[in-house]
Amino acid sequence: MEEEEAKTDNQQELLQRRKNAILVDGVILNGPVADAKAGEKFVEEASKIIMEEVIKKAADVSEKVCEWHPPEKLKTLLDLELKDLGETHQKLLQFCQDVIKFSVKTNHPRFFNQLYAGIDYYSLGARFITEALNPSVYTYEVSPVFLLVEEVVLKKMIEFIGWEEGDGIFNPGGSVSNMYAMNLARYKYCPDIKEKGLSGMPRLVLFTSEECHYSVKKAASFLGLGTQNVYFIKCDERGKMIPEELEKQVQRARKEGSAPFFVSATAGTTVLGAFDPLDEIADICERHDLWLHVDASWGGSALLSRKHRRLLHGIHRANSVAWNPHKMLMAGIQCCALLVKDSSDLLKRCYSANASYLFQQDKFYDISYDTGDKSIQCSRRADAFKFWMTWKALGTVGLEERVNRALALARYLVDEIKKREGFQLLLEPEYANVCFWYIPPSLRNMGKGHEFWEKLHHVAPVIKERMVKKGSMMLGYQPHQGKVNFFRQVIISPQVIREDIDFLLNEIDSLGKDL
Amino acid sequence: MEEEEAKTDNQQELLQRRKNAILVDGVILNGPVADAKAGEKFVEEASKIIMEEVIKKAADVSEKVCEWHPPEKLKTLLDLELKDLGETHQKLLQFCQDVIKFSVKTNHPRFFNQLYAGIDYYSLGARFITEALNPSVYTYEVSPVFLLVEEVVLKKMIEFIGWEEGDGIFNPGGSVSNMYAMNLARYKYCPDIKEKGLSGMPRLVLFTSEECHYSVKKAASFLGLGTQNVYFIKCDERGKMIPEELEKQVQRARKEGSAPFFVSATAGTTVLGAFDPLDEIADICERHDLWLHVDASWGGSALLSRKHRRLLHGIHRANSVAWNPHKMLMAGIQCCALLVKDSSDLLKRCYSANASYLFQQDKFYDISYDTGDKSIQCSRRADAFKFWMTWKALGTVGLEERVNRALALARYLVDEIKKREGFQLLLEPEYANVCFWYIPPSLRNMGKGHEFWEKLHHVAPVIKERMVKKGSMMLGYQPHQGKVNFFRQVIISPQVIREDIDFLLNEIDSLGKDL
Repeated sequence: MEEEEAKTDNQQELLQRRKNAILVDGVILNGPVADAKAGEKFVEEASKIIMEEVIKKAADVSEKVCEWHPPEKLKTLLDLELKDLGETHQKLLQFCQDVIKFSVKTNHPRFFNQLYAGIDYYSLGARFITEALNPSVYTYEVSPVFLLVEEVVLKKMIEFIGWEEGDGIFNPGGSVSNMYAMNLARYKYCPDIKEKGLSGMPRLVLFTSEECHYSVKKAASFLGLGTQNVYFIKCDERGKMIPEELEKQVQRARKEGSAPFFVSATAGTTVLGAFDPLDEIADICERHDLWLHVDASWGGSALLSRKHRRLLHGIHRANSVAWNPHKMLMAGIQCCALLVKDSSDLLKRCYSANASYLFQQDKFYDISYDTGDKSIQCSRRADAFKFWMTWKALGTVGLEERVNRALALARYLVDEIKKREGFQLLLEPEYANVCFWYIPPSLRNMGKGHEFWEKLHHVAPVIKERMVKKGSMMLGYQPHQGKVNFFRQVIISPQVIREDIDFLLNEIDSLGKDL
Repeated sequence: MEEEEAKTDNQQELLQRRKNAILVDGVILNGPVADAKAGEKFVEEASKIIMEEVIKKAADVSEKVCEWHPPEKLKTLLDLELKDLGETHQKLLQFCQDVIKFSVKTNHPRFFNQLYAGIDYYSLGARFITEALNPSVYTYEVSPVFLLVEEVVLKKMIEFIGWEEGDGIFNPGGSVSNMYAMNLARYKYCPDIKEKGLSGMPRLVLFTSEECHYSVKKAASFLGLGTQNVYFIKCDERGKMIPEELEKQVQRARKEGSAPFFVSATAGTTVLGAFDPLDEIADICERHDLWLHVDASWGGSALLSRKHRRLLHGIHRANSVAWNPHKMLMAGIQCCALLVKDSSDLLKRCYSANASYLFQQDKFYDISYDTGDKSIQCSRRADAFKFWMTWKALGTVGLEERVNRALALARYLVDEIKKREGFQLLLEPEYANVCFWYIPPSLRNMGKGHEFWEKLHHVAPVIKERMVKKGSMMLGYQPHQGKVNFFRQVIISPQVIREDIDFLLNEIDSLGKDL
């Protein structure tokens, strides 16, 4: 009743406005066109759906990880077409329901498919705040709080790396962080390249392990260095770069007359979770005056654990570090920092373009907080804030506990794999990646010759298809460095319990035992 | 009472778990460590604060745009430090309040400071969904809905550009979109560069207007081309690239023996809102076989208006277009598409690295939806979805209305400026950027010599300082191309009404009349 009266009042008001209309170019300029009350109502209703269908179900293993349909089928289930006229709120809320229904629940306790998983409630609250405030983090003028927060978070991350000072910037992804680092190293090597470019320069060469993330190659191509000038260094059987091989390749590059400038070591490789021996690599970089970058996008979070930080021994000797709190620390996609040891404003000198419309020099506050010119982006999201909120909520001790627990669960999984028939580890893991084969009964008594591996190669994809269609869990598989398809189980979320690990192994067996 | 009982139950359960504890590496693996109920409660409480303090106040002009403090003061008002132990929920919710309180309300109807502003309720609902679902858009396997949505949105944007087919990718920013385009053009020009790099290549040269966005320069530097190889083309007095000057510069480059490959025209320049004459530029590009990119990050949205799309006449002849729906169309930061006319999979050929752990070739569905290899990023946000939701809610007609209304309000502002004493337009605007000087009474009778301009230069910064400290509104100023500091008013939000424009002019006068 009250609502109806309000509606009538609204209509009266609208009519009144139309009567006093000011028309410019045929547009009535009195009163806003957007109906704020209706808009607020929509957000409220959508938020309720999110709370019920996503957040409250995040800890419930009886829910499906995904209600999966192939692309053509899913298109018929969703009304995706964009039309001339808008839809009703009722229809829009139905879209919200459907989008959630048919999306993968990456926060489900049995989603093990990527290097992110789970739900962090504190980060999520912060993410809702930034979406609502819609800031862009380039000047203190428009993002005072978020710039201060970023400063604090970067400082703390730098402390955990073990540098006395440093600089950094949150940016959209580990891949982009690696690009930032490569370009920064190049600028340090030869500042002229910023203005003159690479034409006429000697061939610049960089080094990374054959187990590195593919973004190193992408970066070399994007930055105009060329993928052929990425020299891939051999790894040992655990996936760690062999320092002697690096030394050899650097010498080879020198002999060829090219210009070695950059080494990207990996702390936590994508597939195997291996850590390069940073201290030994740092020795080589020092000797040859090479920039040492550590891609710790995945492994950096181990720095927060007093027990596991030895995995990154020597990281304080790096010139730059990429570290994604959106992975193991669950800050939400995306939350990625590039950290730089230099504190002589190298980042700014390398990236600045001094746009006068943003970075006015006659501002009334300390413009050292206008960090936008350290970035390749113009508008930039407030990604540090969500991580700050989680850190505030859990404290360093709580973050450490998460890391320790994830690695303990990985250890438990390894022990279980060793106990069970039909499961075989690829290698003893260092981190949260557990790589293993499931060998169905039909292959168990076969000799491990060509036929065995050929057949085994087809096992994981079928089990994956079955689990996705069933919706019971999700974990990834891949072939890798000559090894046939195997599963890569990654444990992150504190919602994961021992029973989920048991379930995982039982489910693989149950889905694959007929193969 | 009920709550307390529940609490006791919880504690009982915890005790029970500890008794049956399975210890691995000193970590108890029974039961989750994260308290889901408490987490949900936090999100619920934070959401309430967001609704009350951000969303419901977004349409309220009596609220301050910002409660501004200088950095050192603000640090003392916020407890930013990251500690060993976590904080209570009460404290965390207080942080939420404080962060909102001291942040700039970019959705306030009187926030005119950047090329984004206002609140779109539908986009916001969608943004909450993606934050809660936390997807990464690289494979259909993990992002089925968001990949289909992206396909539909790109197709529709391509239709509005006027191409029959095409390709595209949402990415983090107009700056990054421009980089994508430049690299794509380079790849098209000489595919070998991807592998071999630029060393030994002739000097590649690109062209853009002197009014272009600074990201073109940043891109040239980042991609190893060098800022000196960006040839800046003169503009006419309205800020539009002069085609004859482009022709001259291309010929100059050829004469120098360098390799021209790329023209970046601008549709909607950042400061003046000028549109380059695309059709004439396209003629030149065709003649010289140059890739034509249009940076329509800001101006692209005019394509949705039947009345204003003539501003981009000729855009269908471009090879690529950058277009940010997070600007005029209010999709929320960030929402940026790079659109490419080529439909021979150039984007994928240029960017692919074929990571076997993500893009397995033996998947059970149509892997053409695994678009992650078209991107320089690995994890990628579902930015298309929020724009899709707004488009669904308003329809094309509603989006068109927004554009028309923003431009009509700009027109109204121009008329008012012409009427009022002490206000002077820099130029007749084409788009939503209205650039003007406020001349305080003390300068009004002065001859327009050096002293006048020198004094006028200091007016805008003082008014800006006063308005920010008062919190009444926010608009930007800058010096530009030899012109002393002037205001740039940008109108976007449908919440802005005629009265806000009147207020703006009155407020400037009131804040600056003593200068």
